[in-house]
Amino acid sequence: IRSKLPRVGTTIFTRMSKLAEDHQAINLAQGFPEFDCSPDLQKLVDKYVRLGKNQYAPMAGVMVLREAIAEKVFASTSHQYHPETEITITSGATEALFVAISTIIHAGDEVIVFEPTYDSYVPAIELNGGIPVFVTLDPQYESIDWGAVCSRITPQTRAIMVNTPHNPTGNVWKLNDLQQLAHLAEKYDLLVISDEVYEHIVFDGQPHISTASIPSLAARTFLCGSFGKTFHTTGWKLGYCLAPSALTTEFRKIHQYVVFSVVTPLQFAVAEYLAEPAHYLSLSSFYERKRNMFLDAINDTGFAMRPTEGSFFQNASYSNLSDENDRVLAERLTKEVGVASIPVSSFYNEITDFKTLRFCFAKNDETLLRAADALHKIV
Amino acid sequence: IRSKLPRVGTTIFTRMSKLAEDHQAINLAQGFPEFDCSPDLQKLVDKYVRLGKNQYAPMAGVMVLREAIAEKVFASTSHQYHPETEITITSGATEALFVAISTIIHAGDEVIVFEPTYDSYVPAIELNGGIPVFVTLDPQYESIDWGAVCSRITPQTRAIMVNTPHNPTGNVWKLNDLQQLAHLAEKYDLLVISDEVYEHIVFDGQPHISTASIPSLAARTFLCGSFGKTFHTTGWKLGYCLAPSALTTEFRKIHQYVVFSVVTPLQFAVAEYLAEPAHYLSLSSFYERKRNMFLDAINDTGFAMRPTEGSFFQNASYSNLSDENDRVLAERLTKEVGVASIPVSSFYNEITDFKTLRFCFAKNDETLLRAADALHKIV
Ligand SMILES: CSCCC(=O)C(=O)O
Ligand SMILES: CSCCC(=O)C(=O)O
Repeated sequence: IRSKLPRVGTTIFTRMSKLAEDHQAINLAQGFPEFDCSPDLQKLVDKYVRLGKNQYAPMAGVMVLREAIAEKVFASTSHQYHPETEITITSGATEALFVAISTIIHAGDEVIVFEPTYDSYVPAIELNGGIPVFVTLDPQYESIDWGAVCSRITPQTRAIMVNTPHNPTGNVWKLNDLQQLAHLAEKYDLLVISDEVYEHIVFDGQPHISTASIPSLAARTFLCGSFGKTFHTTGWKLGYCLAPSALTTEFRKIHQYVVFSVVTPLQFAVAEYLAEPAHYLSLSSFYERKRNMFLDAINDTGFAMRPTEGSFFQNASYSNLSDENDRVLAERLTKEVGVASIPVSSFYNEITDFKTLRFCFAKNDETLLRAADALHKIV
Repeated sequence: IRSKLPRVGTTIFTRMSKLAEDHQAINLAQGFPEFDCSPDLQKLVDKYVRLGKNQYAPMAGVMVLREAIAEKVFASTSHQYHPETEITITSGATEALFVAISTIIHAGDEVIVFEPTYDSYVPAIELNGGIPVFVTLDPQYESIDWGAVCSRITPQTRAIMVNTPHNPTGNVWKLNDLQQLAHLAEKYDLLVISDEVYEHIVFDGQPHISTASIPSLAARTFLCGSFGKTFHTTGWKLGYCLAPSALTTEFRKIHQYVVFSVVTPLQFAVAEYLAEPAHYLSLSSFYERKRNMFLDAINDTGFAMRPTEGSFFQNASYSNLSDENDRVLAERLTKEVGVASIPVSSFYNEITDFKTLRFCFAKNDETLLRAADALHKIV
């Protein structure tokens, strides 16, 4: 059969996790926590399964969860999303992103994509006949050149993909970035798809500024979020898409035929757990301590690192240490040193070597220290 | 924005469930059981959540579940699907169907669709630029006219959609149907997408004959299944797609960007529960008794009914009783008589009135008797 995605193979996350398993390496590659979700949240799952919340949820999600999300987002952004018409529960942020892209991209439409970029955006654009137009940033970039973004906009540009805090760089957008985005989006009548799954993992006192907090942006944005990173439940595949009702109406038309609805008992469990802000407001400091511990522990390896601003990823350049291609080095480190990472060039469309590796530090302290120890062997 | 699905509104299932709720009517519309899944299965969810199976599953699904499915399918069909390369766990059969269609349908490809047809097939075909070509059957049809199917095949025909036991008619394909399908598929080099979610709900001693049991069909079929109907867990959204490895490779390329993976703890729970065949082999007799009770109880209403062969749906023609359009009658019965059903014309592309309603009998005996009682008021 003729492939719909001829350039796509198995994702780098699957490949590196497999390689880590095969070589019993410490897996700092795929982004998921080594620790478990809270026992309280676990008990809530049992509660709702036993209460018989096991049949189809409403297509848009159970109302208590949509209401809990509306309240939470209002508290931090002052933007009121209406649970009935503007909030849809999805099978993780991945489905939210896929459906948002499918909703607005017609054949020939161009979409501005910053690279490095999370690996699902481009295939979703291409499956819909869209054309990704890249704005290429260095993996250790400090700020976005909005002039460069502007120069990539054409009459075919339909949308722009946003991700803050950013995977894989950890960069957190500043107010100025959101204002520039709002300005361009309005000027050129672009829609925005914003991936904010690391919203609660931001360091050094910086705030996460959501697209929802800028009214002119909220009016043209599909805000995609998730609970997996926030509650240590990446395997629950529970996410959402917030968008103005005209966009949500079209979004739901597609969502209803992609998955129809999302796991009912987990929706109820997360709705109840979400009511207590302490359950997510301490996450930044939890991960900031881990980031610092990891940075300290590999400080003298020779890796060049700018402390990550958000997310649970730390990039490290090894250009002082080795000439190897980053894919080659990532593989060798997994096999020989026993630490798996992600070669950052995997997040780029064309450039195949940035001499930078991405390490996930959502791991137990002991694991991070063991990994750091092993990484000294790179030299 | 320009709609990707201009003809699509809210699904009939969502609309009738809402109408039933608003009018406190008995909901025999949307297909889901009124009773809960087994407490043993509930306990398994708790077990795996507490065991910490809460992070990303492998993209293709957890291996124990893929192995359990392979064994189960082998036992009933003698076809060996390889867990590593031919089985993918999906977010319900809906996602399996959506991804299978997306995998093979390019712009301009034609797909043979029998109508009445489940409502997700056509939008999925159209989102991929495909063209549904309908073979129209009466809602009380007794057998398929394979000559008519043959006459709809053109050089553009890429695939044929199969659903046995069939929603909404309940019809179960006979060996001859599968042989005819295999013959046409080979002759015209068609792929097959088979929806077999009601495989364990077949009545009067008839067997479910899976596409997997015919080797030449298995070699060109995406077999889509689900646990929702089998274990009374429609809200868990746990399904799968079985297909030869060349097809599975392409299927997974898309699945990995649509949802990436599926709820981990539920996969483990169902894998363990599936090991005991008694958990599904008694389902046909469980539902056959309900079908018979419902038929008996509305026997003297004047509805004309052929006992359904499989699934948990019973169609009833009211052409002797009323001239109303089936959409109008379904709405009136919900509001005035207190019983919600699905107008069968919703399962057709163009014909808008078949004077037939679909009733779901996956309900408690007492509910079925109350509904039957109320339905006497139709006259
Ligand atoms: C869906 S697997 C990838 C997990 C992740 O977000 C990452 O590692 O970047
Ligand atoms: C996904 S909601 C529809 C449930 C169902 O299978 C039906 O009622 O036909």
